[in-house]
Amino acid sequence: MFMHQKRLQYTVRVAETNPGLANLMLEQFGGPQGELAAAMRYFTQALGEDDPGRKDMLLDIATEELSHLEVIGSIVAMLTRGAKGKLAEAAEEQAELYRTINGAGNDSHVTQVLYGGGPPLTNSGGVPWTAAYIDTIGDPTCDLRSNIAAESRAKIIYERLINLTADPGVREALGFLMTREVAHQKSFEKALYAIEPNFPSGKLPGDPRFSDTYFNMSQGGPERRGPWNQGPQWDYVSERERQMAVDGGDGGASVQLSSDEAATLERLRARTKSEPTVDPVTGADLGAGPGAGSTTLGSDEEPRPSKR
Amino acid sequence: MFMHQKRLQYTVRVAETNPGLANLMLEQFGGPQGELAAAMRYFTQALGEDDPGRKDMLLDIATEELSHLEVIGSIVAMLTRGAKGKLAEAAEEQAELYRTINGAGNDSHVTQVLYGGGPPLTNSGGVPWTAAYIDTIGDPTCDLRSNIAAESRAKIIYERLINLTADPGVREALGFLMTREVAHQKSFEKALYAIEPNFPSGKLPGDPRFSDTYFNMSQGGPERRGPWNQGPQWDYVSERERQMAVDGGDGGASVQLSSDEAATLERLRARTKSEPTVDPVTGADLGAGPGAGSTTLGSDEEPRPSKR
Amino acid sequence: MFMHQKRLQYTVRVAETNPGLANLMLEQFGGPQGELAAAMRYFTQALGEDDPGRKDMLLDIATEELSHLEVIGSIVAMLTRGAKGKLAEAAEEQAELYRTINGAGNDSHVTQVLYGGGPPLTNSGGVPWTAAYIDTIGDPTCDLRSNIAAESRAKIIYERLINLTADPGVREALGFLMTREVAHQKSFEKALYAIEPNFPSGKLPGDPRFSDTYFNMSQGGPERRGPWNQGPQWDYVSERERQMAVDGGDGGASVQLSSDEAATLERLRARTKSEPTVDPVTGADLGAGPGAGSTTLGSDEEPRPSKR
Amino acid sequence: MFMHQKRLQYTVRVAETNPGLANLMLEQFGGPQGELAAAMRYFTQALGEDDPGRKDMLLDIATEELSHLEVIGSIVAMLTRGAKGKLAEAAEEQAELYRTINGAGNDSHVTQVLYGGGPPLTNSGGVPWTAAYIDTIGDPTCDLRSNIAAESRAKIIYERLINLTADPGVREALGFLMTREVAHQKSFEKALYAIEPNFPSGKLPGDPRFSDTYFNMSQGGPERRGPWNQGPQWDYVSERERQMAVDGGDGGASVQLSSDEAATLERLRARTKSEPTVDPVTGADLGAGPGAGSTTLGSDEEPRPSKR
Amino acid sequence: MFMHQKRLQYTVRVAETNPGLANLMLEQFGGPQGELAAAMRYFTQALGEDDPGRKDMLLDIATEELSHLEVIGSIVAMLTRGAKGKLAEAAEEQAELYRTINGAGNDSHVTQVLYGGGPPLTNSGGVPWTAAYIDTIGDPTCDLRSNIAAESRAKIIYERLINLTADPGVREALGFLMTREVAHQKSFEKALYAIEPNFPSGKLPGDPRFSDTYFNMSQGGPERRGPWNQGPQWDYVSERERQMAVDGGDGGASVQLSSDEAATLERLRARTKSEPTVDPVTGADLGAGPGAGSTTLGSDEEPRPSKR
Amino acid sequence: MFMHQKRLQYTVRVAETNPGLANLMLEQFGGPQGELAAAMRYFTQALGEDDPGRKDMLLDIATEELSHLEVIGSIVAMLTRGAKGKLAEAAEEQAELYRTINGAGNDSHVTQVLYGGGPPLTNSGGVPWTAAYIDTIGDPTCDLRSNIAAESRAKIIYERLINLTADPGVREALGFLMTREVAHQKSFEKALYAIEPNFPSGKLPGDPRFSDTYFNMSQGGPERRGPWNQGPQWDYVSERERQMAVDGGDGGASVQLSSDEAATLERLRARTKSEPTVDPVTGADLGAGPGAGSTTLGSDEEPRPSKR
Repeated sequence: MFMHQKRLQYTVRVAETNPGLANLMLEQFGGPQGELAAAMRYFTQALGEDDPGRKDMLLDIATEELSHLEVIGSIVAMLTRGAKGKLAEAAEEQAELYRTINGAGNDSHVTQVLYGGGPPLTNSGGVPWTAAYIDTIGDPTCDLRSNIAAESRAKIIYERLINLTADPGVREALGFLMTREVAHQKSFEKALYAIEPNFPSGKLPGDPRFSDTYFNMSQGGPERRGPWNQGPQWDYVSERERQMAVDGGDGGASVQLSSDEAATLERLRARTKSEPTVDPVTGADLGAGPGAGSTTLGSDEEPRPSKR
Repeated sequence: MFMHQKRLQYTVRVAETNPGLANLMLEQFGGPQGELAAAMRYFTQALGEDDPGRKDMLLDIATEELSHLEVIGSIVAMLTRGAKGKLAEAAEEQAELYRTINGAGNDSHVTQVLYGGGPPLTNSGGVPWTAAYIDTIGDPTCDLRSNIAAESRAKIIYERLINLTADPGVREALGFLMTREVAHQKSFEKALYAIEPNFPSGKLPGDPRFSDTYFNMSQGGPERRGPWNQGPQWDYVSERERQMAVDGGDGGASVQLSSDEAATLERLRARTKSEPTVDPVTGADLGAGPGAGSTTLGSDEEPRPSKR
Repeated sequence: MFMHQKRLQYTVRVAETNPGLANLMLEQFGGPQGELAAAMRYFTQALGEDDPGRKDMLLDIATEELSHLEVIGSIVAMLTRGAKGKLAEAAEEQAELYRTINGAGNDSHVTQVLYGGGPPLTNSGGVPWTAAYIDTIGDPTCDLRSNIAAESRAKIIYERLINLTADPGVREALGFLMTREVAHQKSFEKALYAIEPNFPSGKLPGDPRFSDTYFNMSQGGPERRGPWNQGPQWDYVSERERQMAVDGGDGGASVQLSSDEAATLERLRARTKSEPTVDPVTGADLGAGPGAGSTTLGSDEEPRPSKR
Repeated sequence: MFMHQKRLQYTVRVAETNPGLANLMLEQFGGPQGELAAAMRYFTQALGEDDPGRKDMLLDIATEELSHLEVIGSIVAMLTRGAKGKLAEAAEEQAELYRTINGAGNDSHVTQVLYGGGPPLTNSGGVPWTAAYIDTIGDPTCDLRSNIAAESRAKIIYERLINLTADPGVREALGFLMTREVAHQKSFEKALYAIEPNFPSGKLPGDPRFSDTYFNMSQGGPERRGPWNQGPQWDYVSERERQMAVDGGDGGASVQLSSDEAATLERLRARTKSEPTVDPVTGADLGAGPGAGSTTLGSDEEPRPSKR
Repeated sequence: MFMHQKRLQYTVRVAETNPGLANLMLEQFGGPQGELAAAMRYFTQALGEDDPGRKDMLLDIATEELSHLEVIGSIVAMLTRGAKGKLAEAAEEQAELYRTINGAGNDSHVTQVLYGGGPPLTNSGGVPWTAAYIDTIGDPTCDLRSNIAAESRAKIIYERLINLTADPGVREALGFLMTREVAHQKSFEKALYAIEPNFPSGKLPGDPRFSDTYFNMSQGGPERRGPWNQGPQWDYVSERERQMAVDGGDGGASVQLSSDEAATLERLRARTKSEPTVDPVTGADLGAGPGAGSTTLGSDEEPRPSKR
Repeated sequence: MFMHQKRLQYTVRVAETNPGLANLMLEQFGGPQGELAAAMRYFTQALGEDDPGRKDMLLDIATEELSHLEVIGSIVAMLTRGAKGKLAEAAEEQAELYRTINGAGNDSHVTQVLYGGGPPLTNSGGVPWTAAYIDTIGDPTCDLRSNIAAESRAKIIYERLINLTADPGVREALGFLMTREVAHQKSFEKALYAIEPNFPSGKLPGDPRFSDTYFNMSQGGPERRGPWNQGPQWDYVSERERQMAVDGGDGGASVQLSSDEAATLERLRARTKSEPTVDPVTGADLGAGPGAGSTTLGSDEEPRPSKR
């Protein structure tokens, strides 16, 4: 069960209102790397988890991320608090209000016209949050890796936001939130490596014929190699012939059709077959206009008279 | 520049058509962990990458993932190849066709009615692929971690698909695709650790007051701890008081308003203030019906006569 | 700040696993009327709210909805708990596993193949949750009305789910969740009517020429009227002429263009103008085939020779 | 059947073109509270409605909302009519055109580059309209409440738009549209209360143990109460113990597993169990760099000397 | 199989960085008419195609579109290359960085804050690419028409982008990409007309009673006709009576219900029927406030005493 | 202005209820090729259109498509009319109801549980309708081509639906709807070719160096050519060297950086550079477990002996 405490996990002190900055902060409120995504990622993993230690950790961190969602949302609410009343009360004449929400450095019209100055669950571009951001698949070694990556991404977005404002209260709160992502990443790393073995994920082993091969698919310039494709553990394959049909087959795709299926497919194929030997007049030919015909129709062609 | 070779990277031999199974395979064609997501993830990273070695690696693997997209798409096309003609040619009577696309074990109606038996870029539930699946943010240590996690997830989805079919040709091709995810994960791991240091991501250091703290936010049962929150590197905080307002402030949210802003906000507040001391008749009271009134209105109440 | 208690708000006792039923339950986990939508609806409203009483109420109910999200998610997790291991461990032969996830009455393939048996934030059709479900706009009289409607909808979805299962533990927990929606609706009703006046929303009065008019736009059969369009407060307008251009103008749309704009627009218009007096040969004419020409081209027509 | 009349329901006279303002107006064309959402909301309800009076009302109002969609769309078309030709005809030099679509107060690049100056079904931020905005669930007492809320929201968005422009023709047309939302809300209110009883929605009664309880979930500051949680009809519960496991159970989640299920789950659990007593070296440890090791690795560890 | 060549299909030489322009270019990278949409459109069609000539053509063009995706993505990467480092390195003071990403003519905050200066698969408004953009349905005469239309649209978007920049290197590369769309349209036109007949699509003939009828549904002003509704091939129907129930029936909708179904429906109808003869007090009446009552309640009405 | 007539454009007579079939019909109600997409496509084009003839035609057809939306929606409503009451009234015992909505051939659970038996604006898979389906870009020669393609696609979906039901009333109504798509396609074709020239779209001519070239990008098997790439009008380019850097440049991507930009970028590059000559221990190495180390670590390495 969740409980709420009226004090924030970190005090929010904003120096002055700024709806344009508020809009950027939405990236960590309703954006793909934001706190709702984090909280829901860990919370849904916790529900499906049977390992008691991991389950507890996931609930701890999910709950903290909800508390962070509250902190970042409170920053947004403070930054838009002045603007919130203006539009509702029509406190300025129209042209001035228009400039306020649509001016340079203050792209906040979606936030204000649609959401009335409250913090919406969108990213800074106004795209609504979607659970498609959550990549949980229900295997702990995968999900922990996903969590590690997610924490590292969230850390960077906070770093970028810190670089964009000089307001000391905002910077301090963002610094706290950023640091906690680092701490969470460390926890998830420990949890991943507490499972042994954790690589590769799952139960099926890889096919040894293909697990140490590196296919050099991009060619034609200087090859810059590194530990990801050189050294004794890698078989580096550049010959195009050795990249194709690596099973030794013909590289085709085939299926056994029943005779009914084959017959039906043949009917479909006949009905829609292309006639490759005739050069038909096309809609583009018709549309190119009188003067343009010669560019697409050969000069000695009659526009397919035998067909009409 | 991309070039195409008509041979597949792995030969596809399907034993018999099965549109229901094809539908499951879509998970790795147009699903969140599928090959389009992988190819586009690495391709867009490559375009923004300045390190020549990583750029080359990303292009190599992106190109291979496109080739895998072709393999899994060819499996889908083969599995639906028999069904494709039936609906187009109306080759069976209607009730039989209806059963074919809507029957038990064969949930393929979206694929067939809407997409005509071709492989659509949807997941197995028919949800169209979206770039919201791609979590690239333009920092190499984050993006490589995201790639590592993505490869581990894709490996598991292939493993699940392998567990769902006995067709040897399909299993073999899926085994190849699964194994390549393992190899790619290894490459991305090498590339991540070839950056030193790579943790934490970015440039700003964490705030040392908060980087080694673990907040025990979920309480009330047996605490199951592990290396993610115990040992000398962790400060484990269970006291609720030490979890709140950890900056030492009052835990509130505040902003300096200009006098204009404050005055406007006050007008808005007055206009929409709630009157807490009166118990108003509500729409629910009206709607509860004559007999039900007593459950929500006190028996001694007159329906707010002084207000009307 | 949020805190978590390991005990659920309501004990979940499920009689037997049933992934098909779990799939239906997702409607209230990640569906449009579900608990995440409710929690986020109230939580974001609370952040932007200045009235202390309403803010407190919104936080109370948001926190309870998060606790309900945990209850319904736990029901899902229990119902899929048996299935979860089967696919991961390949515990049955393939055809059996295929039937398990794809069979009649058990449409759970997305949940299982993609999400591994954990509770995903999707509706029962697999569509990911989106913040587009939340209709908060930052005006309290609107948002409270939206909350009232949302609670009434959630009540009905729970009622439908209760009608679909005979498992007493599941029914009992769903009954609790359903009842709480009723209680929340009552609270929101009280909060709405504690604002006086609350109708119409906002500050601008309606135009008295149009606020009591009912336009009878659908005609041609028996008119069934009711208090929504009859009685002394309604001006019921059926004459089509009185429904058009009700301002008394010409019903057209116009704008003052600058001379530059007018000239440019004229150039665009000339370039793309349609020639209404010629009957051009079209792509459809070409495509209709030799025998079909007569149905679309008049018999006395030469295929536009003067145009080529 | 629908029929169309070339005259608008309200004459549109725009004083001058302004693509930036047009962009804001899109909020009521293709935005969540806009006219398409309204029209489709009522139209789809009408199709499923059996009560003849409500069905007729829903069709009347749906048809009027389509007519409003035409009015607001015509405003957009007039405001962009000057800009429309400029980009198509390349009527200005490039830098000037760039400023025109991307300048301060004129964020209209999506509208112009992608949609060519026509009115797209997006909100003012460019997000495509989605049927996820429609919350119809097929119960009349819910759907009417949803309609009431929707009309009140649409009224406010129009009010905000009116506050943002001084163009008298635009203000007048918006005033008409705003007023009609008020009239529609009144109709839907009448229709809701013409059903008796209408609260709670649906057929199942609430559980009397929980229907009058208010859970004080957010604590720790001054409690501001009101009619939504005080008075004789409410049981106000603040003790955390009385908020948990309110059924009197243990607050856990459980399910009866078959022995097969239990055995399989045990295998999965064993394979992925976390080993809580060892402090493993992690990827973050590797990545923290040589100097940083001491903060995360215990002092008695040798951090990989052979590798560095 | 796909292979990659490090040389681009067209050399990209950008004169100076400009993240605002980069943002516009995204329209053809991850926008609905962009190169990913084109490549995936043709690639998925190729996989489902049985005609060997068309299949080969689709693969040729799909592969070229992937190469174009690389060209336009490289333009984006070059235009943002300067900005990319600034935010990551915090190379300017905060207010300056804020202006850089949020200033007039430079709406690039989503690209930079969220994506770090790399090319994301979004349109210029930040909306993630979705496979909903792809309209392939698996019939060659439809899909080729869709491709023809898609190429013509992509041509126009490139034309608009060319009109917005004076950078000669960018203009030249865009000119190449634009021209190739013209060439592809020509190929698809030839492929369409190489199928005979290709109109109408599919196998079922139209009903001759309705295939040459034009319904004049929009009336009330000057009728401007053209070859699309006049001439011997069209039956032009303006009489409203002849537009309704054109089958000669009553224009109603009916279904045979079983007696069980009818009885259940009757119960539902009775439970939710509206009482048209009473004028109920509504929530809006309550909310309109004491002074406002008279506008919605008749002066002689008592607020429904008999109902309470 | 729109007006509504209570008679449908085509009478709907359904023989018996069938919610599974209703679900398929949704494809043309709220699916990508359905009637809402058609109506909104033409309606929004009409609003932005200046040519009076085309504008009138677009309004005629948009209005008719709305009337078709009503016909197909009425079919859905009739097919679900029996089921609608059952769930609401709990008219059957739970297991029976569960089978009714979740059984073989009757995948209607989303429609019923979420939408209560009414017709929702989703496709047959439950995906909500999105304006991303509409490809209008505001150029008449493109938009007409898009309309032509859209009509041909809608025709096919109707044909498939006709093939799936034997109910004569449903088949007849679908036949009418299908035929009208054919008629609309003919109108749009006439309107396209009434613009001269209409190919290529827009104003800018193609670059003659590239407009007649066909790049043979897919090679390695039998080349099957046709009029789309052979004949006097095509320059068929197979040599890979002639496909790359076709401008004659080096095929690279470059931009002039300011010295500040270059310096900042260099700092970023140095900070994140990969060290290609060391073979680092990775997370995967750690995770592969004790026995597995040898496959990825060189033989002379001691893999972390102190930790295991």
